[in-house]
Amino acid sequence: MNKSSVSAAVIGASGYTGQEMARLLASHPGFRLSHATSESRAGQSLAGNGLRYTRAAEVPLAEVDVVFTCLPAGESAEWALAARSAGARVIDLSPDLRDGRGGAVYGLPELWRSEIGSAELVANPGCYPTGILLSLVPLARSGLLDRSRTVMVDAASGVTGAGRHARTDLLYGEVAEDYRAYGVGNTHRHVPEIRTGLERGSGGAIPFVFTPHLLPVRRGILETMYVPVAEGIAAAEVKEAWRAAYAAETFVRLLPEGLPSLRDVVYGNEVALGAADVQDVDAPLVLVVAAFDNLLKGAAGQALQNANLMFGFEETDGLWPL
Amino acid sequence: MNKSSVSAAVIGASGYTGQEMARLLASHPGFRLSHATSESRAGQSLAGNGLRYTRAAEVPLAEVDVVFTCLPAGESAEWALAARSAGARVIDLSPDLRDGRGGAVYGLPELWRSEIGSAELVANPGCYPTGILLSLVPLARSGLLDRSRTVMVDAASGVTGAGRHARTDLLYGEVAEDYRAYGVGNTHRHVPEIRTGLERGSGGAIPFVFTPHLLPVRRGILETMYVPVAEGIAAAEVKEAWRAAYAAETFVRLLPEGLPSLRDVVYGNEVALGAADVQDVDAPLVLVVAAFDNLLKGAAGQALQNANLMFGFEETDGLWPL
Amino acid sequence: MNKSSVSAAVIGASGYTGQEMARLLASHPGFRLSHATSESRAGQSLAGNGLRYTRAAEVPLAEVDVVFTCLPAGESAEWALAARSAGARVIDLSPDLRDGRGGAVYGLPELWRSEIGSAELVANPGCYPTGILLSLVPLARSGLLDRSRTVMVDAASGVTGAGRHARTDLLYGEVAEDYRAYGVGNTHRHVPEIRTGLERGSGGAIPFVFTPHLLPVRRGILETMYVPVAEGIAAAEVKEAWRAAYAAETFVRLLPEGLPSLRDVVYGNEVALGAADVQDVDAPLVLVVAAFDNLLKGAAGQALQNANLMFGFEETDGLWPL
Amino acid sequence: MNKSSVSAAVIGASGYTGQEMARLLASHPGFRLSHATSESRAGQSLAGNGLRYTRAAEVPLAEVDVVFTCLPAGESAEWALAARSAGARVIDLSPDLRDGRGGAVYGLPELWRSEIGSAELVANPGCYPTGILLSLVPLARSGLLDRSRTVMVDAASGVTGAGRHARTDLLYGEVAEDYRAYGVGNTHRHVPEIRTGLERGSGGAIPFVFTPHLLPVRRGILETMYVPVAEGIAAAEVKEAWRAAYAAETFVRLLPEGLPSLRDVVYGNEVALGAADVQDVDAPLVLVVAAFDNLLKGAAGQALQNANLMFGFEETDGLWPL
Repeated sequence: MNKSSVSAAVIGASGYTGQEMARLLASHPGFRLSHATSESRAGQSLAGNGLRYTRAAEVPLAEVDVVFTCLPAGESAEWALAARSAGARVIDLSPDLRDGRGGAVYGLPELWRSEIGSAELVANPGCYPTGILLSLVPLARSGLLDRSRTVMVDAASGVTGAGRHARTDLLYGEVAEDYRAYGVGNTHRHVPEIRTGLERGSGGAIPFVFTPHLLPVRRGILETMYVPVAEGIAAAEVKEAWRAAYAAETFVRLLPEGLPSLRDVVYGNEVALGAADVQDVDAPLVLVVAAFDNLLKGAAGQALQNANLMFGFEETDGLWPL
Repeated sequence: MNKSSVSAAVIGASGYTGQEMARLLASHPGFRLSHATSESRAGQSLAGNGLRYTRAAEVPLAEVDVVFTCLPAGESAEWALAARSAGARVIDLSPDLRDGRGGAVYGLPELWRSEIGSAELVANPGCYPTGILLSLVPLARSGLLDRSRTVMVDAASGVTGAGRHARTDLLYGEVAEDYRAYGVGNTHRHVPEIRTGLERGSGGAIPFVFTPHLLPVRRGILETMYVPVAEGIAAAEVKEAWRAAYAAETFVRLLPEGLPSLRDVVYGNEVALGAADVQDVDAPLVLVVAAFDNLLKGAAGQALQNANLMFGFEETDGLWPL
Repeated sequence: MNKSSVSAAVIGASGYTGQEMARLLASHPGFRLSHATSESRAGQSLAGNGLRYTRAAEVPLAEVDVVFTCLPAGESAEWALAARSAGARVIDLSPDLRDGRGGAVYGLPELWRSEIGSAELVANPGCYPTGILLSLVPLARSGLLDRSRTVMVDAASGVTGAGRHARTDLLYGEVAEDYRAYGVGNTHRHVPEIRTGLERGSGGAIPFVFTPHLLPVRRGILETMYVPVAEGIAAAEVKEAWRAAYAAETFVRLLPEGLPSLRDVVYGNEVALGAADVQDVDAPLVLVVAAFDNLLKGAAGQALQNANLMFGFEETDGLWPL
Repeated sequence: MNKSSVSAAVIGASGYTGQEMARLLASHPGFRLSHATSESRAGQSLAGNGLRYTRAAEVPLAEVDVVFTCLPAGESAEWALAARSAGARVIDLSPDLRDGRGGAVYGLPELWRSEIGSAELVANPGCYPTGILLSLVPLARSGLLDRSRTVMVDAASGVTGAGRHARTDLLYGEVAEDYRAYGVGNTHRHVPEIRTGLERGSGGAIPFVFTPHLLPVRRGILETMYVPVAEGIAAAEVKEAWRAAYAAETFVRLLPEGLPSLRDVVYGNEVALGAADVQDVDAPLVLVVAAFDNLLKGAAGQALQNANLMFGFEETDGLWPL
């Protein structure tokens, strides 16, 4: 297959994730955005290129090389599986297939790259899990993390993470100047994905509490993690474990000092990781902060990483620099 | 009638205007908030007092002294007129009756106070017209304004002015970091109200162009007006005309120097007015800026001023200071 | 002393806390704002009343009944002690005297009201400590809290908490669309105050980790606390302990369900408390969230509560409703 | 000269404009960012590449091919002229040389491209003038604009336009939820640049009033212009005149319908232009709106366009798509 002729369709291209996916594909050196769907905008032009939105049912799935499904949870699997049946390779950005249904491979390249290249169907990771797994798995693998105590994950996300839905609780008049927790008590739908990922990545259970908050910003996730560590372990060892794990990675930025903020990462595909010591605690603890763009490394950017691996492009094509 | 027993109902109390109306009434020394309606929240408690939302149909209109109708345009008149028929005195905060339909009195106290005290049905002014009329009418009345040229009114409003509706274009993710014009070319629904008010207030037509913009703030309206004036007239004369007109007014703040900003006025019931000279123009022009809180002086605060006048309270009761 | 003649001076009235203090005093039924100081604005008018800023050195401390010192940390104690020496009763809103220096009484009315009424010198609590102490002390006193494990306090504050200083890191261009941790690892200057307060309030040490974050909002603090509890204890018992402790309190709002957000509390003097259960944890844990306005209950509002107690006013005078 | 070896220095690389300039150069296919200066950050690393900030005095100006001076007004000319004397080609992004001092060529490619390629010293246009000149010059050249009446330009800019200076009036706590006019009455320092540009571009004076406002957004300028036109001229003719003038331009986006908003343009180098008719006016008028990113087309992006022209690169290199 001639690389420059790899056609790509985005099913659900008018949401925040789908828009970002279409934008990335439109300027990729190898993929060619052939279809972008939106039921509500069918017939309208996409900003910045000659394409028009079509209805999903109009996409000739059998003629497209790769399909990115960006529909809401519960609606996406159907299209992903239909596209797969039609012969396309598929990356589903919804949560629908992250439990491995349909034989989907979990597409977190920095942890499980080898499985992705030959995959026909990839479940793109959730935004919150991406930061948590990249932070904690190397610490657990290297034995720094004390599994007998609970990791507290206090997370905050910009509103594009909630999608582009007409909900009164997402209005500017409600979100601006506000900050609130939601989906607390380990009830958020990402909790099973986090649990499975931690267990699979580290070979055993890691107890955690996950508390997401809604931030009055458009983009970005910041996760503050209170990580119980083994006796004698401090932030320096945490950073060293990350360095060992991620030495060859383009999209993991390790801060030698300090902690990352949203401003350091939005509009790029990197996850930034920092660690700090905590004084005056009885049991050893390291504070870990992960920051990344929820629409890029937390969604469309990571999906493009996966697609690059699947089609033999450089993993950074279309993503570095952004 | 014992003043402390004046019962007040708010029809449509879960929108931004209705919430503010209910909040003001709940802490007013003379009115007693007896009913607050919301079809979607019926049965739920209002924050900050013992009341629960009811459905509008459950309000015994004949037993309420004053009814504030805060429904969307097109839905409000029906309830306002029904309440009037049932014997209540009514203030309608929607645009429905501002053309005088049903015998409604236009409730802008600083310009037409004498008509309000005995009114049974008051049409509360629109937010944008309030600032424009208070700025321009005294200038036209005193002959400073040159009616042969056009006033340009460039206005910007916070998003609560658009109501609490589940619209994707009002999501935080759309409004934050954005700024846009809308309803341009004298097509905004406030244009006829502005035109009528200017003509009635000044005894003749004043040509104008009105361009509203949507600001990424929650509250506040700022109107920048390019006012053609007679030969020899400058900002000093404009301020003097305002001083003469508004010497006795609590809710008009005249800036001796400089121009007002949103921060000067939000969370209060004042409109602040400032004027500045413009150099290097062929025809004399004064720059006028009006700023006020769209939910208070632009809606619920002004409605309470009107209600105070109608029921013999001090006009500032429950409004000063805020 | 005639209550209506209680004169009050604000030293440092141009910062965010000092402005709020002056604003509250100006509309208080019993205090009379006699002096408001600002070195940089001396001679200028305060918005909303006839007063002009003076220099601090011009305040006749011996003639003022109560002095509120609102200067930055390190500069405030000197003025507070000078005012005390001159015979005024003093409330210091800086951190300078919170260790009890100069005989200062710690002014957190809901926990230590009895000490405040007769105090001559009050150290007003820090913003972050206010929410943490009000949340945790009743739980520790009633034995619900498991002191053998560590409480994680993940806190977020609006930018007015950082003061009105010309710092590039507080510019709109830096803070908007950002979110970041700061003062991590139990190094924040409020940590000793929190530790002392918890120990004094509950009769023993409570281990904790405190992580503040800077929110892109103007006002408000939200503190998410991961509270280890005794076996068999859940959110219901936590709420019951709060109800028992705060039944008579005006400024503590207990949520029967759900968790508070900033929007629920800003521009008021209440702290709102909520609790939630956490599923799938090895050791029992309750999630606690406290929310309040950093400039009111976290600073000037609480200072006015203290002043009301000191001068025999109703504790809610000038504060309820806001 | 080998294109890939064109070395570029940014003098003043820690302000908002300088940062953007350095970021663009770092990913340009032909330029090589060799020096980035900051007096306050000397020795620190630039995010995203291996370079460290140096002091301006340490830059070997004679060895650099092109120097971008991004210092504040009044400080920049000195460095620009020094770099020129040392033999470098220079683009000054400050207002210092926009009056043509030092033989500087005014670098607005869409209007005066032919002068730029061979220029040794380019004065990069101001942000506000860029949108105004691109909007109005084609209308005046084609005779649509009525020079006997005044154009009102009501403009709004994000805060990065004010630079990264430690000023209390630019703090998040001051700017958020605010909106205000500044530099009104044709006193803004861009007024002479606008006047000169209009006159030079259209062969005669165009009277105008310019009123800038400060928006609570990080990036973006929106200019709403009330344009007096000749009898019989409407928005359609305005758009046609632009189409004729800008048919070959990559960085001018003409909206066939509607008006542009900030969200359409930020993070890109395009200026978007829209026009609308106005009903009920005595003298013919067309409403024109221009929107663009103040840091890109309004500063660093346009500077890179100029540099591309000066060194024989494609004008869009490093800028399209962004």
